[in-house]
Amino acid sequence: MSSLELALASELVASDWLNTPEPITLEQLRGQVVVIHAFQMLCPGCVSHGIPQVKLLHEYYANQPVSVLGLHSVFEHHDAMQKHALQAFAHEYRLSFPIAIDQASDSGPIPETMQRYNLRGTPSLIVIDQKGKLRLNHFGHIDNLAVGNLIGSLLAVNSLDPSDEKKHASVSPHCDEEGCVV
Amino acid sequence: MSSLELALASELVASDWLNTPEPITLEQLRGQVVVIHAFQMLCPGCVSHGIPQVKLLHEYYANQPVSVLGLHSVFEHHDAMQKHALQAFAHEYRLSFPIAIDQASDSGPIPETMQRYNLRGTPSLIVIDQKGKLRLNHFGHIDNLAVGNLIGSLLAVNSLDPSDEKKHASVSPHCDEEGCVV
Amino acid sequence: MSSLELALASELVASDWLNTPEPITLEQLRGQVVVIHAFQMLCPGCVSHGIPQVKLLHEYYANQPVSVLGLHSVFEHHDAMQKHALQAFAHEYRLSFPIAIDQASDSGPIPETMQRYNLRGTPSLIVIDQKGKLRLNHFGHIDNLAVGNLIGSLLAVNSLDPSDEKKHASVSPHCDEEGCVV
Amino acid sequence: MSSLELALASELVASDWLNTPEPITLEQLRGQVVVIHAFQMLCPGCVSHGIPQVKLLHEYYANQPVSVLGLHSVFEHHDAMQKHALQAFAHEYRLSFPIAIDQASDSGPIPETMQRYNLRGTPSLIVIDQKGKLRLNHFGHIDNLAVGNLIGSLLAVNSLDPSDEKKHASVSPHCDEEGCVV
Repeated sequence: MSSLELALASELVASDWLNTPEPITLEQLRGQVVVIHAFQMLCPGCVSHGIPQVKLLHEYYANQPVSVLGLHSVFEHHDAMQKHALQAFAHEYRLSFPIAIDQASDSGPIPETMQRYNLRGTPSLIVIDQKGKLRLNHFGHIDNLAVGNLIGSLLAVNSLDPSDEKKHASVSPHCDEEGCVV
Repeated sequence: MSSLELALASELVASDWLNTPEPITLEQLRGQVVVIHAFQMLCPGCVSHGIPQVKLLHEYYANQPVSVLGLHSVFEHHDAMQKHALQAFAHEYRLSFPIAIDQASDSGPIPETMQRYNLRGTPSLIVIDQKGKLRLNHFGHIDNLAVGNLIGSLLAVNSLDPSDEKKHASVSPHCDEEGCVV
Repeated sequence: MSSLELALASELVASDWLNTPEPITLEQLRGQVVVIHAFQMLCPGCVSHGIPQVKLLHEYYANQPVSVLGLHSVFEHHDAMQKHALQAFAHEYRLSFPIAIDQASDSGPIPETMQRYNLRGTPSLIVIDQKGKLRLNHFGHIDNLAVGNLIGSLLAVNSLDPSDEKKHASVSPHCDEEGCVV
Repeated sequence: MSSLELALASELVASDWLNTPEPITLEQLRGQVVVIHAFQMLCPGCVSHGIPQVKLLHEYYANQPVSVLGLHSVFEHHDAMQKHALQAFAHEYRLSFPIAIDQASDSGPIPETMQRYNLRGTPSLIVIDQKGKLRLNHFGHIDNLAVGNLIGSLLAVNSLDPSDEKKHASVSPHCDEEGCVV
């Protein structure tokens, strides 16, 4: 990709899905920001910060044009992380967003979507903008501030109509009962 | 304020400043996002999450048009939180951003800027946009995700030139050496 | 059990073990304090505080007469928590202490040892003294202070020879390089 | 001190006290375990883990022969940490145990008790046994497990009457409503 042009994010290759009646494609989600948490259910770093972060994202952006997805990209201990085990995990950890099961590869341990995105490991956080372009592909811990800053910027750019200042005010954070957003 | 128009943020009323050779006015900062952390040095909630949050904001937005300020709004234990004590506190907690000392009031314990902003207490987080309009006035804990989302949206709107898509890509998060921002 | 007499802790009923060449019995461990962390690998509370606590106990008491054991007491999602999955979990979470796999019951989902100890769920922490008597059977979170206090008291009582004061000094905490134990 | 004999802990030298009608001496506390948290109110490490730890100790051992004391050992920013400031701090952080104000020295910044105990800095945790002998003098962070282990061992040794096994059972941890101590 040149520095002037963003790459279109590769389509997901899933062998199965949880928490959705139908498979989901990125193409269907054009017009929304898409956040994908790539994880393995037996990965300690995923469980300790990745999962809490993606649950917060799912809750915080519930009423905004942001789709939150899980991507179970198993590259080790394959027999311990089959679909029935992932279902138990999703149940226990109260994961209610759709989760794609990354398609196992014929040629090695790294599953297909993980290969396409060139993920370094799990957890990885992927953010795709409303036009389907890849904006973030981050391995490891990333602070909520950075994630919020990116998603907020994408939502604002998309909603912008320069002749209509009132709209900007709508880009305001969700606040709890202790606080007040002006 | 009507629902269609945002209020201009009140100017700060400071009796003194730390970490700046000259007093700072909000008017001087037009064109930048301004983040103000209102605190008291002996307030446990300020110390445990407000101070770490504002230090992170100061570091994360260091190279962007975002000004981070402290506002020491003392409304109790006034004699224990004088300027020399605040200087010791700022030294021990490694606070390097400018800190305004909220002007004590003649008529009661609540200092002047705190009155103008109608703050419910400390910590409070105030965010002002590039035109000087108040966007957030939040008492208590607020997640970094919400703060990042708001500031990211303000930076994006301001930098937007609809004919120039390349600019949008510049609104990308700071990543550590473990990660890669596309 | 009367209030004057402590019950002998029931023997473990294990179908298999990890991290030990031979099965272990409580009877073999007479003379030592035995700490047992009953858990399920897909139990969020076990993973977030039970596992870190038992790893700390294992490390802290490494050179003292304290045996730390895991007990995998699966009472739900049985097919997702078989031995090969537990092995992957133990590998990823770096668990090096012996782990008993609680014997499945013929008559219901609750495994045998869990029934014998009347465990309310996972995580549970069990402490057994040097004479094999049950001293703690705690469901849920328990602070390290309480656990240390109990184990320290058991170690002290056992090592006590009233004519020899020097011995008492040996019951001193492990300290890092920043500190000094007198 | 020889390796065979423990040193008697030096008496505290306090210019003033908080939260007690009368000054307290270590000599008065013979027969109890004494825990002393040496701190400075503007020391970040004291506030983030020392203070929470000592509050937990005070609460956990409330009904046992353990005295918890604070020692405000100011060796920098003296003018910002006078008695009235410490009172405000103790009020805001809900410290209800007695706090000794370490006597300032005529000859330098290090106060008298800090010199006697040869403290390396703040926070430091000091534990003294029922005979007044120094058992722990630890600078920096120390885990609750280590502190509990030490205090538990001291309480057990003291309460021990080898002919009376029932007594041992009394050295049991405090448990919340979720748990049960046998």
